[in-house]
Amino acid sequence: MSSPDVLAALSSVTTATLTTILFKKGLRNVWLRGTAPLAAGQQRVAGPAFTLRFLPQREDLATPAAWSSPTSTRAAVEAMPAGCVVVADTAGIADAGIFGDILCARMRQRQVAGLVTAGAVRDRAGIVQTGLPVWCSAAAAPPAVAQLAFVGWQQPVACGGVAVFPQDIIVADEDGAIVIPAALTGEVAAQALEQERTEAWILDQVLQGAPLTGLYPLSPENQARYEAYSKGRDG
Amino acid sequence: MSSPDVLAALSSVTTATLTTILFKKGLRNVWLRGTAPLAAGQQRVAGPAFTLRFLPQREDLATPAAWSSPTSTRAAVEAMPAGCVVVADTAGIADAGIFGDILCARMRQRQVAGLVTAGAVRDRAGIVQTGLPVWCSAAAAPPAVAQLAFVGWQQPVACGGVAVFPQDIIVADEDGAIVIPAALTGEVAAQALEQERTEAWILDQVLQGAPLTGLYPLSPENQARYEAYSKGRDG
Amino acid sequence: MSSPDVLAALSSVTTATLTTILFKKGLRNVWLRGTAPLAAGQQRVAGPAFTLRFLPQREDLATPAAWSSPTSTRAAVEAMPAGCVVVADTAGIADAGIFGDILCARMRQRQVAGLVTAGAVRDRAGIVQTGLPVWCSAAAAPPAVAQLAFVGWQQPVACGGVAVFPQDIIVADEDGAIVIPAALTGEVAAQALEQERTEAWILDQVLQGAPLTGLYPLSPENQARYEAYSKGRDG
Amino acid sequence: MSSPDVLAALSSVTTATLTTILFKKGLRNVWLRGTAPLAAGQQRVAGPAFTLRFLPQREDLATPAAWSSPTSTRAAVEAMPAGCVVVADTAGIADAGIFGDILCARMRQRQVAGLVTAGAVRDRAGIVQTGLPVWCSAAAAPPAVAQLAFVGWQQPVACGGVAVFPQDIIVADEDGAIVIPAALTGEVAAQALEQERTEAWILDQVLQGAPLTGLYPLSPENQARYEAYSKGRDG
Amino acid sequence: MSSPDVLAALSSVTTATLTTILFKKGLRNVWLRGTAPLAAGQQRVAGPAFTLRFLPQREDLATPAAWSSPTSTRAAVEAMPAGCVVVADTAGIADAGIFGDILCARMRQRQVAGLVTAGAVRDRAGIVQTGLPVWCSAAAAPPAVAQLAFVGWQQPVACGGVAVFPQDIIVADEDGAIVIPAALTGEVAAQALEQERTEAWILDQVLQGAPLTGLYPLSPENQARYEAYSKGRDG
Amino acid sequence: MSSPDVLAALSSVTTATLTTILFKKGLRNVWLRGTAPLAAGQQRVAGPAFTLRFLPQREDLATPAAWSSPTSTRAAVEAMPAGCVVVADTAGIADAGIFGDILCARMRQRQVAGLVTAGAVRDRAGIVQTGLPVWCSAAAAPPAVAQLAFVGWQQPVACGGVAVFPQDIIVADEDGAIVIPAALTGEVAAQALEQERTEAWILDQVLQGAPLTGLYPLSPENQARYEAYSKGRDG
Repeated sequence: MSSPDVLAALSSVTTATLTTILFKKGLRNVWLRGTAPLAAGQQRVAGPAFTLRFLPQREDLATPAAWSSPTSTRAAVEAMPAGCVVVADTAGIADAGIFGDILCARMRQRQVAGLVTAGAVRDRAGIVQTGLPVWCSAAAAPPAVAQLAFVGWQQPVACGGVAVFPQDIIVADEDGAIVIPAALTGEVAAQALEQERTEAWILDQVLQGAPLTGLYPLSPENQARYEAYSKGRDG
Repeated sequence: MSSPDVLAALSSVTTATLTTILFKKGLRNVWLRGTAPLAAGQQRVAGPAFTLRFLPQREDLATPAAWSSPTSTRAAVEAMPAGCVVVADTAGIADAGIFGDILCARMRQRQVAGLVTAGAVRDRAGIVQTGLPVWCSAAAAPPAVAQLAFVGWQQPVACGGVAVFPQDIIVADEDGAIVIPAALTGEVAAQALEQERTEAWILDQVLQGAPLTGLYPLSPENQARYEAYSKGRDG
Repeated sequence: MSSPDVLAALSSVTTATLTTILFKKGLRNVWLRGTAPLAAGQQRVAGPAFTLRFLPQREDLATPAAWSSPTSTRAAVEAMPAGCVVVADTAGIADAGIFGDILCARMRQRQVAGLVTAGAVRDRAGIVQTGLPVWCSAAAAPPAVAQLAFVGWQQPVACGGVAVFPQDIIVADEDGAIVIPAALTGEVAAQALEQERTEAWILDQVLQGAPLTGLYPLSPENQARYEAYSKGRDG
Repeated sequence: MSSPDVLAALSSVTTATLTTILFKKGLRNVWLRGTAPLAAGQQRVAGPAFTLRFLPQREDLATPAAWSSPTSTRAAVEAMPAGCVVVADTAGIADAGIFGDILCARMRQRQVAGLVTAGAVRDRAGIVQTGLPVWCSAAAAPPAVAQLAFVGWQQPVACGGVAVFPQDIIVADEDGAIVIPAALTGEVAAQALEQERTEAWILDQVLQGAPLTGLYPLSPENQARYEAYSKGRDG
Repeated sequence: MSSPDVLAALSSVTTATLTTILFKKGLRNVWLRGTAPLAAGQQRVAGPAFTLRFLPQREDLATPAAWSSPTSTRAAVEAMPAGCVVVADTAGIADAGIFGDILCARMRQRQVAGLVTAGAVRDRAGIVQTGLPVWCSAAAAPPAVAQLAFVGWQQPVACGGVAVFPQDIIVADEDGAIVIPAALTGEVAAQALEQERTEAWILDQVLQGAPLTGLYPLSPENQARYEAYSKGRDG
Repeated sequence: MSSPDVLAALSSVTTATLTTILFKKGLRNVWLRGTAPLAAGQQRVAGPAFTLRFLPQREDLATPAAWSSPTSTRAAVEAMPAGCVVVADTAGIADAGIFGDILCARMRQRQVAGLVTAGAVRDRAGIVQTGLPVWCSAAAAPPAVAQLAFVGWQQPVACGGVAVFPQDIIVADEDGAIVIPAALTGEVAAQALEQERTEAWILDQVLQGAPLTGLYPLSPENQARYEAYSKGRDG
């Protein structure tokens, strides 16, 4: 699949299915703990990670000058490419909001696909109005500068107990956000589509009253039934 | 009261009132911490507990064979009786979802009344569509097998810091889930109905502007007023 | 500004903006962790703090007599003035609900502006019906008496890791609740209004496509542009 | 027993035995979580509680003037009577030390029996040198003023999830600190002495090879054997 | 190796080395979090797991009768074979001690090799005197019955976030306790002995001033040097 | 002071005094939470920070090749200069040990002054034997590779909730480790020496029976007395 096709495919698959595929490849720790949708009804997003890195604040660093320094969050926002999913590492701190409505509005203008953090954002109502999809652990009123020092972007980061590298693919939906290592994206997308098709058929059988035994996972007999159905559908 | 009458009575009473009654009998630790409704508008459910027990995963146990073993979650689902409330002990783990849409759909088919866990479920959107009422602490994308090993059903379990035995009665509503020890169910139901009637009258007095003094709890004078009202209503 | 004007001003400003102003005055720790809106759509509230203090329960204190003692929560409710925001310190305990529908209904009758706690409330559905705006960390079924002993009101308290003194001003909205020390209220309100005006103009520029550089924070040039706009608007 | 006799008795009994006695009287929550001995070999202490209350720090309160204000910790130390056990409530904060060597040295001079907190102390080496027995959760370098505001003494407090009132009796040993409500002290001391005698006899039986069955708790037969032994010893 | 040889071998190897061997076999989650030595100088122990299972206490279960019921901890102690390592699952609860001096003295009499729990024990001083090696997270004065209900022995349990089955091998030393699945014990012991020999040689090289490059892990050249040394030593 | 003099001065002052000085300069968050001495009797160390950065492990990164990659911990150790204090950021993970005896022995050979982490180390007994002073939160048997991916050295890091930059000065003693921003080191050292002298005099007064009032902090009168004493001593 081409890269846009891969992202389109990933956008059509639940993170639940994607983590199952990743588990089968030996990856267990890919779900970013503490990343829940900020607003009801947010669509699933998929895109390459654009990482931000914060450290706990230190008073000698928290000067007004920090806001217009070359490593400010403002400069980071202006470096974000269209389609990326921003992943912010807040060093475990969730009692200050990393961004409010103005920065989220600008990210939206730059066609950022979404913002993911295990920390907090601020001005929940204002952010929701910008339309930027956000996954986070909380809304917290205080400004980032009260608790956090921004130290750079596009470095490897930790978010929700998971390592994320720039250009890894992030997918986020109602179950939170996950990371797919860049090198595995194509095969994961392909297998996930097939898995979703199989599970849709299984769910349909269950809704018709079939018991789980032999169905989930598929026994050889049910595997054959599914393949016959699948061939018929695709043929 | 007959058993169906007891369950009907318990379904009409808030868990707040039921925990007050249980407290008066000396039971303080009956509320399952971390059990919040998954979807808005879930109706209150009441039914006998059907327990599931998970341990932290160990890689030598996490084989594909586990899914079709006689102690799989699939076998447990097929053993669930109509009307039960499933209570899952996840050993404090909430970063993998114990069930997704397929198993929840099957539970719904089997007329399971609800699913309660202090852990997580996965595929939130899919589960909500099945119509199964769920109380849990979070939605988490990863499959159970990534973090959890299923070891059996209908054993005593711990859920949210509370002991639950098979056949204890579980009631769950907007305040979360509680357990009523099997032996106490009948008397709790009777006293709770009376308590709700009393509190409804008190609330009505408050809404008419009465101060709390002498009203909540009832002074002898107000107790007499309530009894007169109550007799009038019932007579 | 007069006191009612100050409260009116504070009610029109986000807690995000207010914490920014407080940060500029050197106050970092003013956001009450664990205070989220109980119901969707709660309006922002602002008012002087009326504090409640609970300790962990001790069985020798948890007698029925406690409910009608002179230091009961009932007596505290009857002492609440119209317009206050109640702040309850639960000593870190969130597995029992401090108030249910009856006490909240009475607080509403007494024109209490809102209830704030990092602990829990009980009977969520009933409380929402009373119309009292509540900020808390959870809904929990058990009665306060199962876990908490009430020891007095209008003392200094800790709530969500923040010190609150009686008569400090509390403001709460979708980002949770914050405290403004009584002595700073007037100047904070004035500066916050101006900050909101400035940020509204900046947001407007962003929505028209302006990059953040030189805009947020304002460069001297953009400061001049804003002032010209501002003069035009006010003039 | 007279009050000095009671304290002498309590000093000769383990906190493990005392909590067993308190449990039999219906008190479960009497052990102050997070109170471990600071130094090896600290002797057991018992004495009436002298309480201190801290709140989370707020920058507008943390002025140099605070140190010499009438409600400073210095003034509190000068009010401590000989023989008391100081219990400090730090509102869950353990990343600043409430006292260092100077205040502990002064407490020692004033014949304070011990210091108990679920928070931290600072200058561990210096405190150990003063000889004051301390129970706490950690040693932390920062001064109290960096995180904590002192608000008064001899108020009811929470320490380690337990309510402590002035004049309750505190006993602390290698298992941490416990509270005995003032009204129960005499009977607890008497029963604890008897319990220790019984358990010493049981332990002796175990060391001679007796199995636990019928021994712990005592069967009627073993109860009789113990009573015969006990009479012989006392007679 | 015979079973006693395997246990002897495991007793001579650090848990650090054993977890490295287990990691190479794909097992990551084998270290029981929260299991630290109770006393200084405890020797390493190794033996088959004898499991105990506690649930959170429920007041209707906490009767004096529980102590002499057939599923009491007393009965469990009398069922413990010589050489076993007891592993107690306390459902995450660490504010009551599961055992004190009497039960530990009896375990010692029965030649139990050690006691491991992520919960707490009580009467630290008394237990240390019995000589039973204990790994736990804390000493806590309250009796088990205040917080815990014992429900059985020799069931699969969770301890410190790790699954333990009866007859798995437990090894505990200064780094805490680990589990080796029963089926892997022999090969783990053999490989661990070889790994310790290799690491001893590497450490010796480091102490003589060798840099880590090519040494740890061994380059082919250093591997050859080590093998020559090893052959010489063994020959 | 010259740089060696500054380090010598800092080595003679407690971290308690240093955090007081830093607090007076407006720095509150300089103590690295979770950094306790690994062994009894470790001397205080002071030196420039050499930072290490770990992320949570991801299975696709945890290959044997990682150990000999150019960004391995081995390469980092070989880059450490004599006298540095190593500060390791483990992203909040403490259930695997970052280093064992071999790497610590090599660090000791390279004259590293100490190792500081809020995470864990492994093979406690072996590390203590190397003589390298270590501050950490725990000993944990599992190898780093089971939980952690090493991503580089001499980057800004977070350790125990505090930001540390390469070349900041770290001081560690019985109260844990603190950071002094590089730019402030000289003046902090000078003021700390003076503060220690003053406090030693105050402590001496207390040991002679003086009350705290007017002594701590010094009243003008006592300030004069101290200065006279101080002049006498120095003159």
